[in-house]
Amino acid sequence: MDPVYSHIDANKDRFINLLGEAIAIPSVSGDAAQRPSVLAMGQWLVRQLERLEFSSIVERNPGTQELQGVTLALPPVILATYGTDPSKPTVLVYGHYDVQPALKEDGWKYDPFQMVVEEETGRIYGRGSTDDKGPILAWLWVVETYKALGKELPVNLKVCFEGMEESGSEGLDDIIKEEANNYFKDVDCVCISDNYWLGTKKPCLTYGLRGVSYFMLEISGPAKDLHSGVFGGTVHEPMTDLFHVMSKLVTPQGKILIPGIYDDVAAVTTQEDALYSNLDFSLADIHNATESETTIHGSVRDTLMHRWRFPSLSLHGVEGAFYAPGAKTVIPAKVTGKFSIRSVPNQTPERIAELVKEYVEGEFAKLKSRNTLKFDAPQGGKAWVADVNSWNFVAARSAIEKVFKTSPDLTREGGSIPVTLTFQEALNKSVLLLPMGRSDDGAHSTNEKIDTLNYIEGIKLLATYLEEVAVVTKE
Amino acid sequence: MDPVYSHIDANKDRFINLLGEAIAIPSVSGDAAQRPSVLAMGQWLVRQLERLEFSSIVERNPGTQELQGVTLALPPVILATYGTDPSKPTVLVYGHYDVQPALKEDGWKYDPFQMVVEEETGRIYGRGSTDDKGPILAWLWVVETYKALGKELPVNLKVCFEGMEESGSEGLDDIIKEEANNYFKDVDCVCISDNYWLGTKKPCLTYGLRGVSYFMLEISGPAKDLHSGVFGGTVHEPMTDLFHVMSKLVTPQGKILIPGIYDDVAAVTTQEDALYSNLDFSLADIHNATESETTIHGSVRDTLMHRWRFPSLSLHGVEGAFYAPGAKTVIPAKVTGKFSIRSVPNQTPERIAELVKEYVEGEFAKLKSRNTLKFDAPQGGKAWVADVNSWNFVAARSAIEKVFKTSPDLTREGGSIPVTLTFQEALNKSVLLLPMGRSDDGAHSTNEKIDTLNYIEGIKLLATYLEEVAVVTKE
Ligand SMILES: [Zn+2]
Ligand SMILES: [Zn+2]
Ligand SMILES: [Zn+2]
Ligand SMILES: [Zn+2]
Repeated sequence: MDPVYSHIDANKDRFINLLGEAIAIPSVSGDAAQRPSVLAMGQWLVRQLERLEFSSIVERNPGTQELQGVTLALPPVILATYGTDPSKPTVLVYGHYDVQPALKEDGWKYDPFQMVVEEETGRIYGRGSTDDKGPILAWLWVVETYKALGKELPVNLKVCFEGMEESGSEGLDDIIKEEANNYFKDVDCVCISDNYWLGTKKPCLTYGLRGVSYFMLEISGPAKDLHSGVFGGTVHEPMTDLFHVMSKLVTPQGKILIPGIYDDVAAVTTQEDALYSNLDFSLADIHNATESETTIHGSVRDTLMHRWRFPSLSLHGVEGAFYAPGAKTVIPAKVTGKFSIRSVPNQTPERIAELVKEYVEGEFAKLKSRNTLKFDAPQGGKAWVADVNSWNFVAARSAIEKVFKTSPDLTREGGSIPVTLTFQEALNKSVLLLPMGRSDDGAHSTNEKIDTLNYIEGIKLLATYLEEVAVVTKE
Repeated sequence: MDPVYSHIDANKDRFINLLGEAIAIPSVSGDAAQRPSVLAMGQWLVRQLERLEFSSIVERNPGTQELQGVTLALPPVILATYGTDPSKPTVLVYGHYDVQPALKEDGWKYDPFQMVVEEETGRIYGRGSTDDKGPILAWLWVVETYKALGKELPVNLKVCFEGMEESGSEGLDDIIKEEANNYFKDVDCVCISDNYWLGTKKPCLTYGLRGVSYFMLEISGPAKDLHSGVFGGTVHEPMTDLFHVMSKLVTPQGKILIPGIYDDVAAVTTQEDALYSNLDFSLADIHNATESETTIHGSVRDTLMHRWRFPSLSLHGVEGAFYAPGAKTVIPAKVTGKFSIRSVPNQTPERIAELVKEYVEGEFAKLKSRNTLKFDAPQGGKAWVADVNSWNFVAARSAIEKVFKTSPDLTREGGSIPVTLTFQEALNKSVLLLPMGRSDDGAHSTNEKIDTLNYIEGIKLLATYLEEVAVVTKE
């Protein structure tokens, strides 16, 4: 791999400048006014794919959407292929070319859409630098490097780049399902680089995500809000009922009180338990992130297990009650309490919703209130976990060891990356999350950055990963 | 009293038309743009007082206020005197000439600032008709009637009309305290006509009001809102703590759970208990008002006792949490739960705040949370109760019997009318609430009205009340 690494090092400035070109296109998918920039960013990528002689470049059109009162064309899902040698494994890589909104006045040191490389720190600042323009470009520079060296790519590569990830990936799932037996037919494994190292020092492989189930409890009584002087003490108040029921969901220590909710949670195996040793993480990392010392658990192991592999329940708010500053003495007529459960293997959204409904309705019945409860479970997404012993993970692990001279942390994420599960279920092939940036990159925050080391060694990592995939699949 | 009654009947249309003039001045105190109309309404009243030859007419200026970004002159508190005979008792009457906002498009049948008298029903529609322009004008037409008949008023009358009642009575308390030993020095009793009959058929005297104490529980943890995927299960969540504490305040049946809170509540005496018989009220009245059957208590007696003479606790809302429609999975960093207690004799705001603070802090401590609780009791107003056997009430009761040929209901209000307590404490004289309108007048709602019967018989009632005051104070 030495010539590959040398070529990447030699082209460092060029790769950084190309990232700067991409950052300069403000492809904010959540802002109707910036939709032309999202489309322009897609075209920029298509031109790169053409220059690199990818074949079968397809711009799949997911249709239109209503946003901020206008009908907008959705940006294309860009599919492209590099190599079609049936003797080689085929690796599908996913990334997104849209970004989160960013305004200088939100507290950015520099213009968010004008790349700045800080000499002293090596940090490359700009919206999209780490989420997710840096990673998707890295895949392209791997191909460019092999071409420049006249070297054959060790695998067939397929790319799937979308432009709506930060806005709910509208239309993506349908396209993936439609192409499962077409464009993606020969795919052997999937690699997604769209998350982050656990800390700032050690690379990771990510093998799990929690799911999320959302719930709404609507409690209603009177037809309109009442004056608490006139009616307080004489009618059943929806807010009182709601607080009674919602206070029965979870303890202040995070234990969910819904009977049966833990029954389907996978037991911790000895092998899994071992993954929690020597992680690049300390409780101080949470304290820094939250600027508080409000952690529940005393050890890194317990803390991360509760982030990654145990369910949690959070209360989010109440719709219909008084929420403004100041004092108002209203009795709200109809209130909707909102909460969600982060779910884990082997829980299913269906079973969770069943248990929550039964419990909530039972607790409400105990109140003997004359108000009315309406239970709704509008959303439920499953958790995801991969086999860390599968060849896809073995290849990535050995690539990390070669590039970074260290064993990666094997991590999960407490949140969800829905496309992971979509690929898993539509293609039924191993999916790997291979993060490039660090935990402090500020992906959805101000001053987003990627470190030059993460970007440049990241290109090497992706190249090495493809080599290792070719090796392990040959064995 | 026959000539007085005949003169009032003969001038019915004239008194209604004069009310129409007042309704046509949109004196909305809560709207900066309509402040000139509030001032104009004050001037209209001053002209009437001058025409009726009131003496010592004073426009007390309460200063200025900031409203909707502008500095506005507060409307004057108008003081005036009719008669200064030291051998007669002096009655102080209070009312307000400002009104609630009203827009035709809110659902009014007619233009709210254009009086309409419905022939069939006798209803006089218009903003302010019952709250409180009808009642304050009625006092003036009593004087006009005596003057027209060449009859001496049986008492000395002092009026106190304010223009900010619907917007917190800014500046009024200070003026009342300042004038207690000056303008109001010789006052023997106070009469306020600014509330409503309990039902629609029977006149009332009102002898009690509940107080209100407002509370805010701020629970904070992280410095900013957190992602529930990343942090759910690992940190103490302020919302969870808040729901646990707030669910411990009151049962769904309205029983307050704060130890000691009922200790100071006055016991029900036999005499008081008797006042709850034969009231013009049924549970159907609450069901109609709330358009629901969510009453807690099975009898009128229990229901009204819990509105009038037992404390109640209502949860109003949460500041800082997610309140909009839709699903959001945030963990709010700082939330403020808001609730209030309607208090009764002999509870004091100080003792209530003490008990609430101790209990809430104790319940929070039990949670063993690492979040922080901040307790605040920003407002507390005392309950008020009058002696129904005092001569002021005896006079009013016999006036009602003479005009309406029926005994009045003796009622309380569940809400507060703060000026009542201010007069009570500043003057240390009996205060009486003598309502003119009915429970269905829609005082703060659309289609506000006063029935012709209530307005015209109301003028007779006020005249007769003054006669009876003269009689009972002579005995
Ligand atoms: Zn991303
Ligand atoms: Zn993102
Ligand atoms: Zn009023
Ligand atoms: Zn009012």
